[in-house]
Amino acid sequence: MPSPPIVPLAGPGSSERRDAVRNRELLLAAAERLIAERGVDAVSMDEVASAAGVGKGTVFRRFGSRAGLLQALLDRSETEVQRTFMFGPPPLGPGGPPRDRLVAYGHARLRLVARHGDVLVGAEQATRDPFAVPAWRVSATLVRSLLAEAGFDGDLDVWTGILMSAMSPLWTTHQLRDVGVSFDRLADGWTDLVHRALRLP
Amino acid sequence: MPSPPIVPLAGPGSSERRDAVRNRELLLAAAERLIAERGVDAVSMDEVASAAGVGKGTVFRRFGSRAGLLQALLDRSETEVQRTFMFGPPPLGPGGPPRDRLVAYGHARLRLVARHGDVLVGAEQATRDPFAVPAWRVSATLVRSLLAEAGFDGDLDVWTGILMSAMSPLWTTHQLRDVGVSFDRLADGWTDLVHRALRLP
Repeated sequence: MPSPPIVPLAGPGSSERRDAVRNRELLLAAAERLIAERGVDAVSMDEVASAAGVGKGTVFRRFGSRAGLLQALLDRSETEVQRTFMFGPPPLGPGGPPRDRLVAYGHARLRLVARHGDVLVGAEQATRDPFAVPAWRVSATLVRSLLAEAGFDGDLDVWTGILMSAMSPLWTTHQLRDVGVSFDRLADGWTDLVHRALRLP
Repeated sequence: MPSPPIVPLAGPGSSERRDAVRNRELLLAAAERLIAERGVDAVSMDEVASAAGVGKGTVFRRFGSRAGLLQALLDRSETEVQRTFMFGPPPLGPGGPPRDRLVAYGHARLRLVARHGDVLVGAEQATRDPFAVPAWRVSATLVRSLLAEAGFDGDLDVWTGILMSAMSPLWTTHQLRDVGVSFDRLADGWTDLVHRALRLP
């Protein structure tokens, strides 16, 4: 199955648009690197611009605000996960058993949280209703339908909540940072949760 | 086993202290009733004082601030749950099988969240680290030891996190209000989670 481009590509010859796309990527990569090094609170727009080697005006022109830059960073990662889910190879992509897709989906989301924990926790705590965020709605819908396809025989709504809460940025970040659980143990815990939920050995 | 008083009782003849205790109870009961009716954001200290039939000065003298009143409300409920766990009858109190205690403990906490959802969500979102709150530490420690006593054979740290996150005020309130799951379904979901975690039929 051919995968259509999620982001419209710049037409040939449009060097200004190519520059814009390139700057956007440089800025996002720099922001991700700085946040990983120092935590989200310690990173300013100026530093991102300077680390990316572009002018301060460019970062505001591209993202509008600091919040806009952080949101773009999240959107890029979410889009990656969704794209692999829709068009990638198994186990996350279509074709494999739903139980394996559910396991792989959880691992992909946990990786995303491990990478962007700070930003996601900030976003989760800043809103009165973190569940109205489109990415979470999409995620809950996927989890719900994979559970159903895998033959889950319990209360679908309640268990979608249980599985989603086990991937919540706040809790996942707490496990990784405060409890000192490694990413691999967290990922194995997710596999185990899916298996026990489905009453698999 | 005799249960020692958790709160020191006023000595006989101390009518001033008896009044203070009585006012405190009147204020907490009024606050709980008003919050249940209107939501925590819509309730002021003035209204609580007037609903309790005491002067405005009394409510500030007893609790210091609005946050102090809300905290006292939570502490009272937490203390109730802990007291039943330590000194009450089975299934929550000592003596019964650990798996039944774990089920009963989850139900007691879910009831607490259903009753104080607004206040707890506010508290959870207001702090950078909701897991440093003493009540949550106590709760996580109980859940962890009950899991172990019940013969759980998986990763104890990770599963304590999974079970605790399934009782998180934010998620529980979301299920009750936004998804429209009833309290009974949520409580049954908890029982089911414990059973599947322990690989019980």
